Amino acid sequence: MRNLKLTLQYDGTNYVGWQRQASGTSIQGLLEDAFEPIAGTHVTVHGAGRTDAGVHALAQVASASFPGAHESSVLARALNAVLPTDVRVLSVEDMPADFHARFSAVGKTYEYRIVNAPMVSPFLVRYVWHVPNQLDINAMTSAAAHLVGAHDFSAFQGAGSDVVSSERTIHTIDWADGHGHDLPLVIRLRGDGFLRHMVRNIVGTLVDIGAGRWEPERMTEILASRDRSQAGTTAPAHGLFLVRVEYGEDSGLLVRQP
Amino acid sequence: MRNLKLTLQYDGTNYVGWQRQASGTSIQGLLEDAFEPIAGTHVTVHGAGRTDAGVHALAQVASASFPGAHESSVLARALNAVLPTDVRVLSVEDMPADFHARFSAVGKTYEYRIVNAPMVSPFLVRYVWHVPNQLDINAMTSAAAHLVGAHDFSAFQGAGSDVVSSERTIHTIDWADGHGHDLPLVIRLRGDGFLRHMVRNIVGTLVDIGAGRWEPERMTEILASRDRSQAGTTAPAHGLFLVRVEYGEDSGLLVRQP
Repeated sequence: MRNLKLTLQYDGTNYVGWQRQASGTSIQGLLEDAFEPIAGTHVTVHGAGRTDAGVHALAQVASASFPGAHESSVLARALNAVLPTDVRVLSVEDMPADFHARFSAVGKTYEYRIVNAPMVSPFLVRYVWHVPNQLDINAMTSAAAHLVGAHDFSAFQGAGSDVVSSERTIHTIDWADGHGHDLPLVIRLRGDGFLRHMVRNIVGTLVDIGAGRWEPERMTEILASRDRSQAGTTAPAHGLFLVRVEYGEDSGLLVRQP
Repeated sequence: MRNLKLTLQYDGTNYVGWQRQASGTSIQGLLEDAFEPIAGTHVTVHGAGRTDAGVHALAQVASASFPGAHESSVLARALNAVLPTDVRVLSVEDMPADFHARFSAVGKTYEYRIVNAPMVSPFLVRYVWHVPNQLDINAMTSAAAHLVGAHDFSAFQGAGSDVVSSERTIHTIDWADGHGHDLPLVIRLRGDGFLRHMVRNIVGTLVDIGAGRWEPERMTEILASRDRSQAGTTAPAHGLFLVRVEYGEDSGLLVRQP
Protein backbone atom coordinates (compact mmCIF):
# COMPACT_ATOMS: atom_id res chain seq x y z
CA MET A 1 0.00 0.00 0.00
CA ARG A 2 1.38 3.41 -0.97
CA ASN A 3 1.38 6.29 1.51
CA LEU A 4 0.57 9.54 -0.29
CA LYS A 5 1.10 13.16 0.68
CA LEU A 6 -1.38 15.50 -0.99
CA THR A 7 -0.98 19.27 -1.04
CA LEU A 8 -4.32 21.01 -1.42
CA GLN A 9 -5.69 24.48 -2.04
CA TYR A 10 -9.30 25.44 -1.34
CA ASP A 11 -11.72 28.29 -1.01
CA GLY A 12 -13.53 27.36 2.20
CA THR A 13 -16.58 29.58 1.56
CA ASN A 14 -18.96 26.82 0.52
CA TYR A 15 -17.83 24.08 2.93
CA VAL A 16 -18.39 22.95 6.52
CA GLY A 17 -14.63 22.75 7.03
CA TRP A 18 -11.97 20.10 6.62
CA GLN A 19 -13.59 17.36 8.65
CA ARG A 20 -16.59 15.23 7.67
CA GLN A 21 -19.75 16.36 9.51
CA ALA A 22 -23.19 14.84 9.96
CA SER A 23 -24.46 17.24 7.31
CA GLY A 24 -22.96 19.59 4.75
CA THR A 25 -20.00 19.13 2.42
CA SER A 26 -16.50 18.84 3.91
CA ILE A 27 -13.15 18.97 2.11
CA GLN A 28 -12.23 15.58 3.60
CA GLY A 29 -15.51 14.13 2.34
CA LEU A 30 -15.00 15.54 -1.16
CA LEU A 31 -11.50 14.05 -1.33
CA GLU A 32 -12.52 10.65 0.00
CA ASP A 33 -15.43 10.55 -2.47
CA ALA A 34 -13.06 11.53 -5.30
CA PHE A 35 -10.60 8.75 -4.33
CA GLU A 36 -13.16 5.96 -4.05
CA PRO A 37 -13.85 5.25 -7.77
CA ILE A 38 -10.13 5.57 -8.57
CA ALA A 39 -9.01 3.26 -5.74
CA GLY A 40 -11.99 0.90 -6.04
CA THR A 41 -12.31 1.07 -2.25
CA HIS A 42 -12.81 3.66 0.49
CA VAL A 43 -9.68 5.74 1.12
CA THR A 44 -9.42 7.64 4.42
CA VAL A 45 -7.73 11.02 4.09
CA HIS A 46 -6.04 12.64 7.13
CA GLY A 47 -5.54 16.40 7.10
CA ALA A 48 -2.70 18.30 8.79
CA GLY A 49 -5.01 21.04 10.00
CA ARG A 50 -8.71 20.56 10.67
CA THR A 51 -9.74 23.92 9.24
CA ASP A 52 -13.13 25.27 10.39
CA ALA A 53 -16.11 26.03 8.19
CA GLY A 54 -15.24 28.96 5.91
CA VAL A 55 -11.47 28.81 6.50
CA HIS A 56 -9.35 28.72 3.32
CA ALA A 57 -6.14 26.84 2.52
CA LEU A 58 -3.28 27.75 0.21
CA ALA A 59 -1.38 24.59 1.08
CA GLN A 60 -3.22 22.17 3.33
CA VAL A 61 -1.51 18.78 3.51
CA ALA A 62 -3.26 15.42 3.70
CA SER A 63 -2.08 11.82 3.80
CA ALA A 64 -3.81 8.74 2.45
CA SER A 65 -3.10 5.03 2.02
CA PHE A 66 -3.67 4.25 -1.63
CA PRO A 67 -3.66 0.84 -3.33
CA GLY A 68 -3.34 2.03 -6.97
CA ALA A 69 -0.25 2.16 -9.22
CA HIS A 70 -1.16 5.51 -10.86
CA GLU A 71 1.65 7.94 -11.52
CA SER A 72 1.39 10.85 -9.07
CA SER A 73 0.64 13.52 -11.66
CA VAL A 74 -2.00 11.32 -13.31
CA LEU A 75 -3.63 10.76 -9.92
CA ALA A 76 -3.64 14.52 -9.20
CA ARG A 77 -5.33 15.17 -12.54
CA ALA A 78 -7.87 12.39 -11.96
CA LEU A 79 -8.80 13.82 -8.54
CA ASN A 80 -9.04 17.38 -9.91
CA ALA A 81 -11.27 16.16 -12.73
CA VAL A 82 -13.97 15.17 -10.20
CA LEU A 83 -13.38 17.72 -7.42
CA PRO A 84 -15.24 21.05 -7.60
CA THR A 85 -13.11 23.90 -9.01
CA ASP A 86 -12.81 25.58 -5.59
CA VAL A 87 -10.84 22.58 -4.26
CA ARG A 88 -7.58 21.70 -6.06
CA VAL A 89 -4.93 19.05 -5.56
CA LEU A 90 -1.63 20.91 -6.16
CA SER A 91 0.58 17.84 -5.88
CA VAL A 92 0.70 14.17 -4.95
CA GLU A 93 3.92 12.62 -3.58
CA ASP A 94 4.88 9.16 -2.36
CA MET A 95 6.07 9.15 1.25
CA PRO A 96 7.60 6.60 3.68
CA ALA A 97 5.05 4.41 5.49
CA ASP A 98 5.37 6.35 8.76
CA PHE A 99 4.40 9.74 7.30
CA HIS A 100 1.12 11.12 8.68
CA ALA A 101 -0.11 14.56 7.60
CA ARG A 102 -1.18 15.52 11.12
CA PHE A 103 1.17 13.65 13.47
CA SER A 104 4.33 14.19 11.42
CA ALA A 105 3.77 17.96 11.16
CA VAL A 106 6.33 20.01 13.12
CA GLY A 107 5.03 23.45 12.25
CA LYS A 108 2.23 25.40 10.65
CA THR A 109 1.78 28.87 9.26
CA TYR A 110 -1.56 30.67 9.16
CA GLU A 111 -2.36 34.05 7.69
CA TYR A 112 -5.23 36.26 8.73
CA ARG A 113 -6.34 39.08 6.41
CA ILE A 114 -8.12 42.25 7.50
CA VAL A 115 -9.32 45.14 5.36
CA ASN A 116 -9.16 48.21 7.60
CA ALA A 117 -10.87 50.75 5.33
CA PRO A 118 -14.40 52.13 4.97
CA MET A 119 -15.10 49.80 2.06
CA VAL A 120 -13.96 46.38 0.91
CA SER A 121 -13.76 45.30 -2.72
CA PRO A 122 -16.41 42.79 -3.93
CA PHE A 123 -13.48 40.65 -5.10
CA LEU A 124 -11.88 40.46 -1.64
CA VAL A 125 -14.91 40.32 0.63
CA ARG A 126 -14.96 36.51 0.83
CA TYR A 127 -11.31 36.43 1.93
CA VAL A 128 -10.94 39.17 4.52
CA TRP A 129 -12.44 40.46 7.75
CA HIS A 130 -13.81 43.93 7.05
CA VAL A 131 -13.06 46.24 10.01
CA PRO A 132 -14.18 49.73 8.89
CA ASN A 133 -13.01 51.78 11.90
CA GLN A 134 -9.34 52.70 11.92
CA LEU A 135 -7.13 50.32 13.93
CA ASP A 136 -3.98 51.27 15.82
CA ILE A 137 -1.57 48.87 14.12
CA ASN A 138 1.30 49.86 16.43
CA ALA A 139 -0.76 48.82 19.47
CA MET A 140 -1.61 45.54 17.74
CA THR A 141 1.99 44.66 16.82
CA SER A 142 3.15 45.58 20.33
CA ALA A 143 0.44 43.35 21.88
CA ALA A 144 1.25 40.50 19.48
CA ALA A 145 4.92 40.53 20.51
CA HIS A 146 3.88 39.23 23.96
CA LEU A 147 2.58 36.04 22.32
CA VAL A 148 5.80 34.97 20.63
CA GLY A 149 7.53 32.07 22.40
CA ALA A 150 6.34 29.01 24.33
CA HIS A 151 3.17 29.64 26.35
CA ASP A 152 0.06 27.94 27.65
CA PHE A 153 -2.48 29.34 25.20
CA SER A 154 -5.62 28.15 27.10
CA ALA A 155 -6.98 31.71 27.08
CA PHE A 156 -7.17 31.52 23.28
CA GLN A 157 -8.51 27.97 22.99
CA GLY A 158 -12.04 27.44 21.66
CA ALA A 159 -14.46 25.09 23.44
CA GLY A 160 -14.79 21.45 22.43
CA SER A 161 -11.09 20.70 22.04
CA ASP A 162 -9.58 17.37 23.11
CA VAL A 163 -5.86 18.18 23.18
CA VAL A 164 -3.66 16.87 26.02
CA SER A 165 -1.55 20.00 26.44
CA SER A 166 -2.43 23.60 25.64
CA GLU A 167 1.22 24.67 25.49
CA ARG A 168 2.32 25.79 22.05
CA THR A 169 5.22 27.78 20.63
CA ILE A 170 4.68 30.70 18.30
CA HIS A 171 7.94 31.22 16.42
CA THR A 172 7.08 34.47 14.63
CA ILE A 173 4.23 36.88 14.03
CA ASP A 174 4.81 38.93 10.89
CA TRP A 175 2.78 41.85 9.60
CA ALA A 176 2.20 43.11 6.09
CA ASP A 177 0.48 46.44 6.36
CA GLY A 178 -2.41 47.09 3.98
CA HIS A 179 -2.71 50.47 2.32
CA GLY A 180 -6.19 51.17 0.99
CA HIS A 181 -8.94 48.67 0.18
CA ASP A 182 -7.06 46.53 -2.23
CA LEU A 183 -4.16 45.55 0.02
CA PRO A 184 -5.32 43.94 3.24
CA LEU A 185 -3.43 43.91 6.51
CA VAL A 186 -1.97 40.40 6.72
CA ILE A 187 -1.01 38.85 10.06
CA ARG A 188 1.15 35.76 9.58
CA LEU A 189 1.65 33.40 12.52
CA ARG A 190 4.17 30.57 12.39
CA GLY A 191 4.31 28.06 15.21
CA ASP A 192 4.76 24.42 16.14
CA GLY A 193 0.99 24.02 16.23
CA PHE A 194 -2.19 25.90 17.06
CA LEU A 195 -5.11 25.07 19.36
CA ARG A 196 -8.72 25.09 18.19
CA HIS A 197 -9.75 28.65 17.19
CA MET A 198 -6.41 29.92 18.56
CA VAL A 199 -5.51 32.09 15.56
CA ARG A 200 -9.03 33.53 15.30
CA ASN A 201 -9.13 34.28 19.06
CA ILE A 202 -5.69 35.91 18.95
CA VAL A 203 -6.62 38.05 15.92
CA GLY A 204 -9.96 39.04 17.46
CA THR A 205 -8.19 40.11 20.67
CA LEU A 206 -5.60 42.05 18.64
CA VAL A 207 -8.42 43.88 16.84
CA ASP A 208 -10.03 44.70 20.20
CA ILE A 209 -6.69 46.20 21.25
CA GLY A 210 -6.28 48.02 17.91
CA ALA A 211 -9.77 49.50 18.39
CA GLY A 212 -8.73 50.89 21.80
CA ARG A 213 -10.77 48.50 23.98
CA TRP A 214 -7.62 47.48 25.88
CA GLU A 215 -3.99 48.56 26.19
CA PRO A 216 -1.40 46.29 24.47
CA GLU A 217 -0.02 45.24 27.89
CA ARG A 218 -3.36 43.60 28.66
CA MET A 219 -2.20 40.77 26.36
CA THR A 220 0.21 39.42 29.02
CA GLU A 221 -2.61 39.32 31.61
CA ILE A 222 -4.95 37.52 29.20
CA LEU A 223 -2.24 34.96 28.41
CA ALA A 224 -1.42 34.43 32.12
CA SER A 225 -5.10 34.02 33.06
CA ARG A 226 -5.42 30.83 30.95
CA ASP A 227 -9.11 31.79 30.90
CA ARG A 228 -10.95 32.10 27.58
CA SER A 229 -13.39 34.61 29.07
CA GLN A 230 -10.50 37.09 29.54
CA ALA A 231 -9.64 37.22 25.83
CA GLY A 232 -11.58 39.13 23.17
CA THR A 233 -13.65 38.58 20.06
CA THR A 234 -13.27 35.52 17.81
CA ALA A 235 -12.30 36.79 14.36
CA PRO A 236 -14.53 35.43 11.56
CA ALA A 237 -13.43 32.25 9.77
CA HIS A 238 -13.39 33.69 6.24
CA GLY A 239 -10.28 35.88 6.87
CA LEU A 240 -8.15 32.85 7.79
CA PHE A 241 -5.82 30.88 5.49
CA LEU A 242 -3.71 27.82 6.27
CA VAL A 243 -0.64 28.66 4.20
CA ARG A 244 2.04 26.11 5.11
CA VAL A 245 2.60 22.86 6.95
CA GLU A 246 6.18 21.94 7.88
CA TYR A 247 7.64 18.45 8.14
CA GLY A 248 11.17 18.27 9.56
CA GLU A 249 13.68 18.58 6.74
CA ASP A 250 10.92 19.40 4.28
CA SER A 251 9.92 22.93 5.11
CA GLY A 252 6.71 22.63 3.10
CA LEU A 253 5.40 24.52 0.16
CA LEU A 254 4.84 28.21 0.46
CA VAL A 255 2.23 29.30 -2.02
CA ARG A 256 1.67 32.83 -3.20
CA GLN A 257 -1.41 34.56 -1.77
CA PRO A 258 -4.43 34.96 -4.08
CA MET B 1 -33.76 67.28 -9.47
CA ARG B 2 -30.08 66.30 -9.16
CA ASN B 3 -28.35 64.27 -11.83
CA LEU B 4 -25.97 61.78 -10.24
CA LYS B 5 -23.03 59.83 -11.62
CA LEU B 6 -22.37 56.61 -9.71
CA THR B 7 -19.20 54.57 -10.10
CA LEU B 8 -19.76 50.93 -9.22
CA GLN B 9 -17.78 47.77 -8.67
CA TYR B 10 -19.34 44.31 -8.72
CA ASP B 11 -18.65 40.61 -8.82
CA GLY B 12 -21.11 39.48 -11.50
CA THR B 13 -21.09 35.79 -10.47
CA ASN B 14 -24.44 35.78 -8.73
CA TYR B 15 -26.36 38.12 -11.05
CA VAL B 16 -28.30 38.03 -14.34
CA GLY B 17 -26.28 41.03 -15.56
CA TRP B 18 -26.64 44.80 -15.43
CA GLN B 19 -30.15 45.03 -16.83
CA ARG B 20 -33.40 44.13 -15.08
CA GLN B 21 -34.79 40.81 -16.34
CA ALA B 22 -38.14 39.04 -15.95
CA SER B 23 -36.51 36.81 -13.34
CA GLY B 24 -33.28 36.78 -11.36
CA THR B 25 -31.40 39.58 -9.64
CA SER B 26 -29.82 42.32 -11.77
CA ILE B 27 -27.35 45.02 -10.70
CA GLN B 28 -29.71 47.70 -12.03
CA GLY B 29 -32.56 46.20 -9.99
CA LEU B 30 -30.46 46.06 -6.82
CA LEU B 31 -29.48 49.72 -7.21
CA GLU B 32 -33.00 50.93 -7.98
CA ASP B 33 -34.32 48.98 -4.98
CA ALA B 34 -31.59 50.49 -2.79
CA PHE B 35 -32.45 54.02 -3.97
CA GLU B 36 -36.22 53.75 -3.46
CA PRO B 37 -36.45 54.04 0.37
CA ILE B 38 -33.79 56.80 0.37
CA ALA B 39 -35.47 58.83 -2.40
CA GLY B 40 -39.02 58.02 -1.30
CA THR B 41 -39.84 57.30 -4.94
CA HIS B 42 -38.68 55.02 -7.74
CA VAL B 43 -35.32 56.07 -9.19
CA THR B 44 -34.36 54.76 -12.63
CA VAL B 45 -30.66 53.99 -12.97
CA HIS B 46 -28.99 53.99 -16.42
CA GLY B 47 -25.78 52.01 -16.84
CA ALA B 48 -22.93 52.88 -19.24
CA GLY B 49 -22.42 49.25 -20.22
CA ARG B 50 -25.14 46.61 -20.09
CA THR B 51 -22.88 43.86 -18.80
CA ASP B 52 -24.08 40.29 -19.39
CA ALA B 53 -24.86 37.72 -16.70
CA GLY B 54 -21.62 36.79 -14.92
CA VAL B 55 -19.57 39.75 -16.25
CA HIS B 56 -17.76 41.76 -13.57
CA ALA B 57 -17.13 45.49 -13.25
CA LEU B 58 -14.24 47.35 -11.67
CA ALA B 59 -15.74 50.72 -12.59
CA GLN B 60 -19.17 50.60 -14.19
CA VAL B 61 -20.80 54.03 -14.40
CA ALA B 62 -24.49 54.74 -13.91
CA SER B 63 -26.58 57.90 -13.91
CA ALA B 64 -29.75 58.62 -11.95
CA SER B 65 -32.12 61.54 -11.33
CA PHE B 66 -32.34 61.93 -7.57
CA PRO B 67 -34.62 64.25 -5.59
CA GLY B 68 -32.80 64.12 -2.20
CA ALA B 69 -30.40 66.64 -0.66
CA HIS B 70 -28.02 64.03 0.81
CA GLU B 71 -24.33 64.74 0.67
CA SER B 72 -22.69 62.46 -1.95
CA SER B 73 -20.56 60.47 0.48
CA VAL B 74 -23.52 59.97 2.82
CA LEU B 75 -25.60 58.72 -0.10
CA ALA B 76 -22.84 56.29 -1.17
CA ARG B 77 -22.69 54.89 2.37
CA ALA B 78 -26.48 54.62 2.57
CA LEU B 79 -26.60 52.66 -0.71
CA ASN B 80 -23.72 50.39 0.34
CA ALA B 81 -25.46 49.69 3.65
CA VAL B 82 -28.33 47.97 1.82
CA LEU B 83 -26.55 46.56 -1.25
CA PRO B 84 -25.05 43.06 -1.00
CA THR B 85 -21.30 43.08 -0.32
CA ASP B 86 -20.48 41.92 -3.88
CA VAL B 87 -21.89 45.19 -5.29
CA ARG B 88 -20.26 48.45 -4.10
CA VAL B 89 -20.82 52.09 -4.88
CA LEU B 90 -17.29 53.55 -5.13
CA SER B 91 -18.39 57.17 -5.56
CA VAL B 92 -21.37 59.46 -6.15
CA GLU B 93 -20.90 62.78 -7.99
CA ASP B 94 -23.26 65.56 -9.03
CA MET B 95 -23.27 66.14 -12.80
CA PRO B 96 -24.79 68.65 -15.21
CA ALA B 97 -28.37 67.88 -16.27
CA ASP B 98 -27.33 66.60 -19.70
CA PHE B 99 -25.00 63.87 -18.40
CA HIS B 100 -26.18 60.34 -19.23
CA ALA B 101 -24.05 57.33 -18.26
CA ARG B 102 -24.64 55.57 -21.58
CA PHE B 103 -25.15 58.31 -24.16
CA SER B 104 -22.42 60.62 -22.83
CA ALA B 105 -19.78 57.87 -22.83
CA VAL B 106 -17.06 58.37 -25.44
CA GLY B 107 -15.00 55.30 -24.66
CA LYS B 108 -14.85 52.06 -22.71
CA THR B 109 -12.15 49.68 -21.60
CA TYR B 110 -12.74 45.99 -21.00
CA GLU B 111 -10.30 43.39 -19.73
CA TYR B 112 -10.52 39.69 -20.38
CA ARG B 113 -8.55 37.30 -18.19
CA ILE B 114 -7.37 33.83 -19.15
CA VAL B 115 -5.43 31.31 -17.12
CA ASN B 116 -3.40 29.29 -19.62
CA ALA B 117 -2.03 26.60 -17.30
CA PRO B 118 -3.00 23.03 -16.39
CA MET B 119 -4.66 24.24 -13.19
CA VAL B 120 -6.37 27.38 -11.99
CA SER B 121 -6.38 28.55 -8.38
CA PRO B 122 -9.67 28.18 -6.44
CA PHE B 123 -9.33 31.90 -5.67
CA LEU B 124 -9.20 32.94 -9.34
CA VAL B 125 -11.59 30.46 -10.93
CA ARG B 126 -14.61 32.78 -10.74
CA TYR B 127 -12.71 35.55 -12.56
CA VAL B 128 -10.86 33.87 -15.42
CA TRP B 129 -11.41 31.58 -18.38
CA HIS B 130 -9.41 28.42 -17.77
CA VAL B 131 -7.75 27.26 -21.01
CA PRO B 132 -5.48 24.33 -20.02
CA ASN B 133 -3.80 23.67 -23.39
CA GLN B 134 -0.90 25.93 -24.25
CA LEU B 135 -1.81 28.91 -26.40
CA ASP B 136 0.45 30.57 -28.96
CA ILE B 137 0.38 34.11 -27.55
CA ASN B 138 2.39 35.47 -30.49
CA ALA B 139 -0.23 34.23 -32.94
CA MET B 140 -2.95 35.80 -30.76
CA THR B 141 -1.30 39.23 -30.51
CA SER B 142 -0.58 39.19 -34.23
CA ALA B 143 -4.25 38.35 -35.01
CA ALA B 144 -5.49 40.98 -32.57
CA ALA B 145 -3.48 43.70 -34.31
CA HIS B 146 -5.79 43.37 -37.35
CA LEU B 147 -8.72 44.52 -35.19
CA VAL B 148 -7.27 47.85 -34.09
CA GLY B 149 -8.85 50.82 -35.87
CA ALA B 150 -12.31 51.62 -37.24
CA HIS B 151 -14.12 48.57 -38.62
CA ASP B 152 -17.56 47.11 -39.11
CA PHE B 153 -17.52 44.51 -36.32
CA SER B 154 -20.70 42.63 -37.43
CA ALA B 155 -18.76 39.36 -37.48
CA PHE B 156 -18.25 39.70 -33.71
CA GLN B 157 -21.74 40.90 -32.82
CA GLY B 158 -24.01 38.65 -30.79
CA ALA B 159 -27.64 38.06 -31.79
CA GLY B 160 -30.46 40.20 -30.39
CA SER B 161 -28.74 43.54 -30.71
CA ASP B 162 -30.63 46.70 -31.71
CA VAL B 163 -27.79 49.05 -32.65
CA VAL B 164 -28.05 51.29 -35.73
CA SER B 165 -24.43 50.94 -36.84
CA SER B 166 -22.02 48.09 -36.24
CA GLU B 167 -18.97 50.26 -36.92
CA ARG B 168 -16.76 50.74 -33.89
CA THR B 169 -13.19 51.90 -33.28
CA ILE B 170 -10.78 49.88 -31.17
CA HIS B 171 -8.04 52.28 -30.06
CA THR B 172 -5.70 49.76 -28.45
CA ILE B 173 -5.42 46.11 -27.51
CA ASP B 174 -2.87 45.58 -24.74
CA TRP B 175 -1.57 42.30 -23.37
CA ALA B 176 -0.25 41.42 -19.95
CA ASP B 177 1.27 37.97 -20.15
CA GLY B 178 0.52 35.58 -17.31
CA HIS B 179 3.26 33.38 -15.95
CA GLY B 180 1.97 30.39 -13.99
CA HIS B 181 -1.47 29.93 -12.42
CA ASP B 182 -1.47 33.00 -10.26
CA LEU B 183 -0.96 35.60 -12.99
CA PRO B 184 -3.54 35.37 -15.73
CA LEU B 185 -3.08 36.52 -19.29
CA VAL B 186 -4.96 39.84 -19.46
CA ILE B 187 -6.25 41.22 -22.76
CA ARG B 188 -7.25 44.86 -22.43
CA LEU B 189 -9.37 46.43 -25.17
CA ARG B 190 -10.01 50.16 -25.30
CA GLY B 191 -12.43 51.58 -27.84
CA ASP B 192 -15.18 54.09 -28.50
CA GLY B 193 -17.78 51.40 -27.80
CA PHE B 194 -18.38 47.68 -28.15
CA LEU B 195 -21.24 45.72 -29.72
CA ARG B 196 -23.15 43.05 -27.85
CA HIS B 197 -20.80 40.11 -27.00
CA MET B 198 -18.10 41.76 -29.13
CA VAL B 199 -15.28 41.40 -26.58
CA ARG B 200 -16.23 37.80 -25.78
CA ASN B 201 -16.45 36.89 -29.48
CA ILE B 202 -13.10 38.53 -30.21
CA VAL B 203 -11.40 36.79 -27.28
CA GLY B 204 -12.95 33.42 -28.19
CA THR B 205 -11.70 33.81 -31.77
CA LEU B 206 -8.24 34.80 -30.52
CA VAL B 207 -8.15 31.65 -28.37
CA ASP B 208 -9.15 29.56 -31.40
CA ILE B 209 -6.18 31.11 -33.23
CA GLY B 210 -3.88 30.62 -30.22
CA ALA B 211 -4.91 26.96 -30.14
CA GLY B 212 -3.89 26.55 -33.78
CA ARG B 213 -7.39 26.24 -35.28
CA TRP B 214 -6.67 29.12 -37.68
CA GLU B 215 -3.72 31.24 -38.81
CA PRO B 216 -3.57 34.83 -37.44
CA GLU B 217 -4.26 36.22 -40.94
CA ARG B 218 -7.67 34.57 -40.86
CA MET B 219 -8.71 37.47 -38.60
CA THR B 220 -8.84 39.91 -41.54
CA GLU B 221 -11.12 37.53 -43.49
CA ILE B 222 -13.44 37.10 -40.51
CA LEU B 223 -13.65 40.86 -40.03
CA ALA B 224 -14.31 41.46 -43.76
CA SER B 225 -17.01 38.77 -43.89
CA ARG B 226 -19.27 40.71 -41.47
CA ASP B 227 -20.72 37.27 -40.78
CA ARG B 228 -20.94 35.98 -37.20
CA SER B 229 -20.73 32.37 -38.39
CA GLN B 230 -17.19 33.02 -39.68
CA ALA B 231 -15.83 33.98 -36.23
CA GLY B 232 -14.98 31.55 -33.44
CA THR B 233 -16.02 30.60 -29.95
CA THR B 234 -17.73 33.03 -27.54
CA ALA B 235 -15.47 33.32 -24.49
CA PRO B 236 -17.32 32.73 -21.19
CA ALA B 237 -18.76 35.75 -19.37
CA HIS B 238 -16.91 35.23 -16.08
CA GLY B 239 -13.48 36.21 -17.50
CA LEU B 240 -14.72 39.67 -18.56
CA PHE B 241 -14.39 42.92 -16.60
CA LEU B 242 -15.66 46.38 -17.50
CA VAL B 243 -12.76 48.44 -16.16
CA ARG B 244 -13.31 52.02 -17.34
CA VAL B 245 -15.86 54.31 -18.96
CA GLU B 246 -14.59 57.56 -20.49
CA TYR B 247 -16.48 60.86 -20.70
CA GLY B 248 -14.77 63.58 -22.76
CA GLU B 249 -12.44 65.59 -20.55
CA ASP B 250 -12.97 63.17 -17.70
CA SER B 251 -11.04 60.07 -18.65
CA GLY B 252 -12.82 58.01 -16.01
CA LEU B 253 -11.55 56.12 -13.04
CA LEU B 254 -9.05 53.35 -13.53
CA VAL B 255 -9.32 50.90 -10.71
CA ARG B 256 -6.70 48.36 -9.70
CA GLN B 257 -7.46 44.78 -10.68
CA PRO B 258 -8.55 42.43 -7.88
